[in-house]
Amino acid sequence: MSNESLPFEIIPQGGVTTPQGFIAGAVSTGIKTYGQEPLYDLGVILSNSHCTIAGAFTRNQVKGSSVIHNQNLLKNGHGGRAIFANSGNANVATGEQGFIDTANIAQLTAKKFNLEPDDVWIASTGVIGRILPMHQIQSGIENLNLEDHGGHSFAQAIMTTDTRSKEIAIRFQVGQQNFYIGACAKGSGMIHPNLATMLAFITTDIAVNSEWLQQVLEKTVNKTFNMLDIDMDTSTSDTVLMLANGAAENIPIDENHEAASVFCEALEFVATYLTKELAKDGEGAETLIELHVSGANQESDAKSAARTVVSSPLVKTMITGKDPNWGRLIAAVGRSEALVKQEKVSIWIEGHSILDQGTPTDIDLQIVIDAMHTDELRMHIDLGIGNYSSTAWGCDLTNEYVRINGEYTT
Amino acid sequence: MSNESLPFEIIPQGGVTTPQGFIAGAVSTGIKTYGQEPLYDLGVILSNSHCTIAGAFTRNQVKGSSVIHNQNLLKNGHGGRAIFANSGNANVATGEQGFIDTANIAQLTAKKFNLEPDDVWIASTGVIGRILPMHQIQSGIENLNLEDHGGHSFAQAIMTTDTRSKEIAIRFQVGQQNFYIGACAKGSGMIHPNLATMLAFITTDIAVNSEWLQQVLEKTVNKTFNMLDIDMDTSTSDTVLMLANGAAENIPIDENHEAASVFCEALEFVATYLTKELAKDGEGAETLIELHVSGANQESDAKSAARTVVSSPLVKTMITGKDPNWGRLIAAVGRSEALVKQEKVSIWIEGHSILDQGTPTDIDLQIVIDAMHTDELRMHIDLGIGNYSSTAWGCDLTNEYVRINGEYTT
Repeated sequence: MSNESLPFEIIPQGGVTTPQGFIAGAVSTGIKTYGQEPLYDLGVILSNSHCTIAGAFTRNQVKGSSVIHNQNLLKNGHGGRAIFANSGNANVATGEQGFIDTANIAQLTAKKFNLEPDDVWIASTGVIGRILPMHQIQSGIENLNLEDHGGHSFAQAIMTTDTRSKEIAIRFQVGQQNFYIGACAKGSGMIHPNLATMLAFITTDIAVNSEWLQQVLEKTVNKTFNMLDIDMDTSTSDTVLMLANGAAENIPIDENHEAASVFCEALEFVATYLTKELAKDGEGAETLIELHVSGANQESDAKSAARTVVSSPLVKTMITGKDPNWGRLIAAVGRSEALVKQEKVSIWIEGHSILDQGTPTDIDLQIVIDAMHTDELRMHIDLGIGNYSSTAWGCDLTNEYVRINGEYTT
Repeated sequence: MSNESLPFEIIPQGGVTTPQGFIAGAVSTGIKTYGQEPLYDLGVILSNSHCTIAGAFTRNQVKGSSVIHNQNLLKNGHGGRAIFANSGNANVATGEQGFIDTANIAQLTAKKFNLEPDDVWIASTGVIGRILPMHQIQSGIENLNLEDHGGHSFAQAIMTTDTRSKEIAIRFQVGQQNFYIGACAKGSGMIHPNLATMLAFITTDIAVNSEWLQQVLEKTVNKTFNMLDIDMDTSTSDTVLMLANGAAENIPIDENHEAASVFCEALEFVATYLTKELAKDGEGAETLIELHVSGANQESDAKSAARTVVSSPLVKTMITGKDPNWGRLIAAVGRSEALVKQEKVSIWIEGHSILDQGTPTDIDLQIVIDAMHTDELRMHIDLGIGNYSSTAWGCDLTNEYVRINGEYTT
């Protein structure tokens, strides 16, 4: 990723503790192990001062008790100080006990760090339908040490089948003042097994108007994380939380502030970066797919078409096999909720025109096959009937996906 | 499958030419080969007399020109005499030329068998986006020989990635009279790669009222073929055609006829049999999944829940791995369009209670793992909020699926 021409700077090895006033840390409780070796599986992000907090959550009707806990906090508009996260157990479909355990986690975390229980937001990810081992959680919380650079440990603690942690931080200037946004994420939405849950946590030292932050976050999530290979297996625990602690002591940003547009751009950049990182690390993934749909009749059509194509198993395996069997693209578009007129559809793979307004071009397919040997494959479908467009991200489907998901749990 | 207690008898080695007055045949045109060896890839079913014909087609907005051809014939209510089918090339997304070729096929087939062009219904399946090699099709039609027992060759000619042909015929008695229904099918709806298309052709010598036949066929398809692992990759060419030639010379059956209910039962039996055969032969499939959903608030909810669960990659791989990671079941139900209250949901795997009204039971999971070592896995989800139910069929997802789909075409 090049920094040229960006209105902000990427901080090397940055993460959620890069913005001022945030500390974090992680411990191993033994819930998540690699063979016999315990891994970080419980972490906390803490702000030195009270934060405005915005959130976006799974649309699955079956929700983890931590999601419900956070939705209640969001409704109260109270904000908060801390995020507790654990991996290895999602605390979903655990009946009444699940809700009791979530409330207990808030109590224990608050006690440890001198907070009120409703200052503590919670995210749990992992196997569902298993009661949380609360004695391990409790001693984990007691053993936590938070540090200025603890964001990296926290980012590891939220991983499930991820092969690497995903972090980023950026700095931008408005007038003479520097602002920071940091973030980490795990999982890969729907391409992951085990409902692996997409979690993303974003911190900033900018003061932001609370209602506006919620609006901006929702808009950004819809353009980024929600365009990641969705509609296959929506997790019961998907959560994006953004904490703004105002440590920069600026006048809170809203839509009228001079920093509003650069802030939105910066947030979208961070979210897009994490979305692509999640797609690249999709289980067994070898190729990132970036699909642009244009010419749609309305925005929801552009999104539906892009998501449907990028999540199609046939499209995914076509990319695994480096096989320009583009009929799978038009068929996936045709079954999407988007209005499609087959005689208007045009398709490009890596810039090569394959279908021109419903008629196959006479391109030499070997050229396309050669172009498909890439780590990041770009495809473009023009529906040819309107002015709306959208981009979705996904990854190919390999034997490794089947192996990981067949072997997982139990 | 046991014949006990069925109101009809399964004919050993029966198929579409078992009912009186139907002949069929197939040839190799070289479009579909196994290595260097040509395979049957073009076939025709012909009735000695005019037939009432009912049809059900793909809902994909991108449709093959043969689907559009059949839909026009159905709209005219004309019926017909013959079905032409070819495999290896779906003649979809082939622009104007595709429609010209389809019309030509009707002409050539009519000429060969002394029919009118609009007596000929057409189905093409295979790769999409390739122009049909019409010279091969033409000589194929000219070389066709139809026979009394030609149904088996025809059933082979429609196969794409199928590992075996799927055929059945049954006989039932009303009063002193014998009636026959024969059928064949290929593909496996959405689990198949290459949009492999589900085709099914059903013949009968019963005389049936035309409008009633269409109603009964649609109702049957909705309960059977349409409950096969749908909503993943709906083919552009899915087609079910039923031909009733009246060779039995009965008074045409409609809802008031004494044979109406046994006819409906017989048709549903044939369609369910083929649906399960298709699921079992899903690409790379090792296990047939039969999922029953009960307690839904409305019929469409029961169907949506059943289809969503059975098509979930996480559920499929859980079954590949013989892993009772049932959280994937409740999560898939939760993202379906069905109304779900998580505290009401109960789940059974092979009769073992796993989740009881939102709370996990204390079953020994090893018992469930042992029960999952079966070729035909039955699961039951009760939503606990209504009186509607539905059954869906699918198959597990194995490495073989990825291999087949990554290597297909080009």
